[in-house]
Amino acid sequence: MTQTFDVVGIGNAIVDVLAHAEEAFLAREGLVKGTMALIDAERAEALYHKMGPAIESSGGSAANTLAGLASLGGNGAYIGKVRDDLLGEVFRHDITALGVRFDTPAATTGPGTARCLILVTPDGQRTMNTYLGICVELAPADIDPAIIQAAQITYLEGYLFDPPQAQVAFRKAAAVAHAAGRKVALSLSDPFCVARHRAAFRDLVRHDVDILFANEAEICALYETDDFAAAAAAVKGHVGVAALTRSAAGSLVLADGAEYPVPAAPVPRVIDTTGAGDLYASGFLYGLIRGRPLPICGAIGSLCAAEIISHMGARPESELRGFVAAAGLPL
Amino acid sequence: MTQTFDVVGIGNAIVDVLAHAEEAFLAREGLVKGTMALIDAERAEALYHKMGPAIESSGGSAANTLAGLASLGGNGAYIGKVRDDLLGEVFRHDITALGVRFDTPAATTGPGTARCLILVTPDGQRTMNTYLGICVELAPADIDPAIIQAAQITYLEGYLFDPPQAQVAFRKAAAVAHAAGRKVALSLSDPFCVARHRAAFRDLVRHDVDILFANEAEICALYETDDFAAAAAAVKGHVGVAALTRSAAGSLVLADGAEYPVPAAPVPRVIDTTGAGDLYASGFLYGLIRGRPLPICGAIGSLCAAEIISHMGARPESELRGFVAAAGLPL
Repeated sequence: MTQTFDVVGIGNAIVDVLAHAEEAFLAREGLVKGTMALIDAERAEALYHKMGPAIESSGGSAANTLAGLASLGGNGAYIGKVRDDLLGEVFRHDITALGVRFDTPAATTGPGTARCLILVTPDGQRTMNTYLGICVELAPADIDPAIIQAAQITYLEGYLFDPPQAQVAFRKAAAVAHAAGRKVALSLSDPFCVARHRAAFRDLVRHDVDILFANEAEICALYETDDFAAAAAAVKGHVGVAALTRSAAGSLVLADGAEYPVPAAPVPRVIDTTGAGDLYASGFLYGLIRGRPLPICGAIGSLCAAEIISHMGARPESELRGFVAAAGLPL
Repeated sequence: MTQTFDVVGIGNAIVDVLAHAEEAFLAREGLVKGTMALIDAERAEALYHKMGPAIESSGGSAANTLAGLASLGGNGAYIGKVRDDLLGEVFRHDITALGVRFDTPAATTGPGTARCLILVTPDGQRTMNTYLGICVELAPADIDPAIIQAAQITYLEGYLFDPPQAQVAFRKAAAVAHAAGRKVALSLSDPFCVARHRAAFRDLVRHDVDILFANEAEICALYETDDFAAAAAAVKGHVGVAALTRSAAGSLVLADGAEYPVPAAPVPRVIDTTGAGDLYASGFLYGLIRGRPLPICGAIGSLCAAEIISHMGARPESELRGFVAAAGLPL
């Protein structure tokens, strides 16, 4: 492959359906605020019926990260599974319109393109309900080694541990990347997802991951502790670079025995936290690839997260390159 | 029908696809900023392919007005044509989730649910490209007289003059409303739409409309003048109440020989003007039905418009009842 990429992302290709909801709605529906639950088609239909008016926007954790990277001026590729249906077309349009290469063919049979019903409470927190649909068919054959080899970083979302074959695809991608002398990054995605696959994640972090993204709940879930400091201490020896995000408290970047606390970027009002972690990763990875010092990588990540939480949806509304440049950070 | 309605809206049932675009993009595509162009399926596909990443949100002028009315606490119904496809389900979900009654059955054959490709320039102006799809099949048979008779106001969007049968449906609804002693409201929708059907619109305004909504360009198009004052003077004797919107200059309400200038409500930053006129009508009609003085009706309209232009999309993101109450206006 003559084309090269800063990052190739592999993830569940999802279209988000976002609606405002009161806390009482979450309680009535038995939903745990701030987390992601997997739901089947029937439950998706029932929940959609009860939700308020919504907007539709492309989502998917790694896809959001790649969209953010492209909006910063980065050069990305994406691997993920859609159906040849309307939502699949929407997903493909939105990511390719940003210049991200997306070659994975749409499935012509099987369940529909994945959707995530996202309830945004008045505090801006998002609670997600994912119908994986055709994502369960992402398979090792969908991992094009040429794309992985052509990318400086292969970025994997932890959510991929839920669809069974995707975990195999995930490991294939990591192996190809390392064999080509490339880096592997992982986002832990969700504390419940970590809990479902804890042993596999610990093994992966220790042996196959160079750059780890996790929020407080996720890193605590990985090490089965309530103490963030203990979790941060535990991960230190296990991975080259760890970027641990802490919402309004900013992030903590760990590398080579050093710790770099990074403040959060100010936001006039938090509207919807969907995609905050994904966009932090966009900025962090962009900085890393451009050779910026780790605190600057974190600061770019903070800014990208600030943009995404200031509106509904997990894809940037502003061109991030201009947004970050306006804040005076090097790109 | 035992249920009664404040307003029944009749319009083109459309799902919006909104993307940011530069002025140069409009120029390249030959689009006239701030207006609505009708496009066919082929052009819709080609334009979508060239557009940036988008979000999808229910739209349709009268449907937006009814959504706003419901968000204010009003009691509405809607008549419009969708297909039994995904966009049709999205449209139905979004309007019924607000409590608006929507009984028009989905078509089971014919073109798909209408979509409008909306390009939002950095100044917040929207330029619309509508593929009418199944809207062209809205027919007189879709007008349920019982719903019209049960509504204090029948609200019609001028865009309905484009699909041929819809104009007949439109006249049927007006006749039923007046026979039942109800009021008829009309929005002129778009200057080009007015120009396409000028004689019919003039006749309608003069003989069948009690409450007219128009912006500066539309009322000028109706009377073939460049002079807003001349157009305002011309409409005075033709209709009971006219609410003429003038963007940042607010609106001018005309009734019984009197004129009431209404200021625009302040907006921190105009993000997307899509739906501004529709939501002004929501607030104005809501005030009118609650028996508020005309300047208050206009002020409620201004506030609803301010909410809608402060974010992407033509459906309220905040509950308008609380939003208007917070500004100290009576509801």
